[in-house]
Amino acid sequence: MMNSNNSKQIVLTGDRPTGHLHLGHYVGSLKNRVELQEEYPCLIMIADTQALSDHFDNPRKITDSIGEVCRDYLAVGIDPSKSTVFIQSMIPELFELTSYYMNLISVARLERNPTVKTELQQKSFADAITAGFLCYPVSQAADITAFKASLVPVGEDQLPLIEISNEIVRRFNRVYNTEVLVESKAILSGKCNRLVGIDGKAKACKSLGNAIFLSDSSEVIKQKINDMYTDPTHLKVSDPGNVEGNVVFAYLDAFFEDKDELEKLKTRYKKGGLGDSVVKSLLNDTLQALLTPIREKREAVTKEEVGDMLSDGCKKAGGIAKQTLIEVRDSIGLRYN
Amino acid sequence: MMNSNNSKQIVLTGDRPTGHLHLGHYVGSLKNRVELQEEYPCLIMIADTQALSDHFDNPRKITDSIGEVCRDYLAVGIDPSKSTVFIQSMIPELFELTSYYMNLISVARLERNPTVKTELQQKSFADAITAGFLCYPVSQAADITAFKASLVPVGEDQLPLIEISNEIVRRFNRVYNTEVLVESKAILSGKCNRLVGIDGKAKACKSLGNAIFLSDSSEVIKQKINDMYTDPTHLKVSDPGNVEGNVVFAYLDAFFEDKDELEKLKTRYKKGGLGDSVVKSLLNDTLQALLTPIREKREAVTKEEVGDMLSDGCKKAGGIAKQTLIEVRDSIGLRYN
Repeated sequence: MMNSNNSKQIVLTGDRPTGHLHLGHYVGSLKNRVELQEEYPCLIMIADTQALSDHFDNPRKITDSIGEVCRDYLAVGIDPSKSTVFIQSMIPELFELTSYYMNLISVARLERNPTVKTELQQKSFADAITAGFLCYPVSQAADITAFKASLVPVGEDQLPLIEISNEIVRRFNRVYNTEVLVESKAILSGKCNRLVGIDGKAKACKSLGNAIFLSDSSEVIKQKINDMYTDPTHLKVSDPGNVEGNVVFAYLDAFFEDKDELEKLKTRYKKGGLGDSVVKSLLNDTLQALLTPIREKREAVTKEEVGDMLSDGCKKAGGIAKQTLIEVRDSIGLRYN
Repeated sequence: MMNSNNSKQIVLTGDRPTGHLHLGHYVGSLKNRVELQEEYPCLIMIADTQALSDHFDNPRKITDSIGEVCRDYLAVGIDPSKSTVFIQSMIPELFELTSYYMNLISVARLERNPTVKTELQQKSFADAITAGFLCYPVSQAADITAFKASLVPVGEDQLPLIEISNEIVRRFNRVYNTEVLVESKAILSGKCNRLVGIDGKAKACKSLGNAIFLSDSSEVIKQKINDMYTDPTHLKVSDPGNVEGNVVFAYLDAFFEDKDELEKLKTRYKKGGLGDSVVKSLLNDTLQALLTPIREKREAVTKEEVGDMLSDGCKKAGGIAKQTLIEVRDSIGLRYN
């Protein structure tokens, strides 16, 4: 139901289609989106073009993932009558907006973007930063502003991108003496938004293969939980165990609802006397209960449902972006004919 | 008439619409285009978007210039039945191509582009290089390849841009295992392509205001010739004079047809005994003879002629670019329904 106070708030979220979605996405954004769509008009962008900026040599991975991501969406409860799901590259206006915004931000400013810095370190291609990679925050500003999104759910690491987008908005409105572009606010997902990988390393990540996917079978889930990193010093059941850095407890924190019961378990584990197999079994029950209905719904999704969702979504998103581009061109003064 | 050997050659040229065109354009490119259009299909792009990259805060200058540039074209003999004249920002496919190409070139490579370096020095905004300015060679690669242009008339200073474009073409064709993009060759204009400014400084340049415009009245032309920098040591008619660095002789070199007669004049001038007023008067006769019919034709150009030329040109250019974009997306694999 639309809250009248929120009638002007528009939410934009999305994913890079580079594989199936996993529990990290679920807890970090999908669950939140299912709630947000009850309150706001939501646009969900499948960012194929953005994914190309660091997968340009493997576009197949992107195009093959789009349908899978859509099935994940429908499976968790994204409702196409409430959320507009669309493919980035199907909205040509985004490219043109990007081009105008590129004149309003310096290379130096883009090089200071910490996300770019981090990804640079992680991917070790410092000498081969492509123009596309450097400029993707500008393209993201186009995504946000094209739909006049005022609320953008992000992880903390993406806050600098919202800042860049707002800098561009302010600069545009000032240079062209207009108010057509709208600043956006980040909605920070909770502290669980960076679900740790099952190997205990960094966050659960499609490319690191250390995640439990929404499409994983019951057996695979069980196996992945069995393989989870716990506490290497916790050798015997009677040994005191570490809860910090213990992946099983991190997942229980994220998914086990009875927090009192969880605190008791943690106390027992720390004291000694609680075996890994018991907590893993509890986590398995918890995740199977969460994921079984999602997987079943996912398997029931038809190609037609996905096709309809995308074609309706692209049409609707395209209409909004077209209108914004008209306003942007009018503001710049690029009116011909 | 189309030469059958040239049937696959396509020429792309163009101008940034930042003012009226002048004699530097005439001798450096317009005259050449009038000849090229007899032999090749020619596309002439009015690069409003590119001009925005360093005039983003003065778009009015750009939009106001488009009609003037078109009148200059028609006045010198650009024939809309042979040359396709179009506005860059009216071809949205160019923005999308730019986006894909930005993934295929490094920031470091773009920073090595000497044109960028030079313009940086000239405009002294080293600390505020915008992303748009850095990336304009990528946008130019989109312009060239969208129309599969194989011949691009340029000045020597623009050769590095053709190189960047060809690097992108080769990279694209290799990465996506295709041959859809076509490498281009520069057609270097003659040695006169950098006509000196009437003040003797650098080249004639719209922004420096040191040029004789195709639209200048007879009186203005005469006045500008009178003001021309000659040889500051040539005080009396009987003094020996310098021909090198003498703007009047530079313009006679470019526009006075009887080269034997010109050599004789130079000899006399160097020896002493030939006054500036005599050579200026000769230059005035020469330029009035050249520019009077151009100005008269220019004044007769109607709004409708300009409108028809642009609307036909944009339609035709748009059709070609759309087809190329389909091929490019197909090559990347971005085929959705």
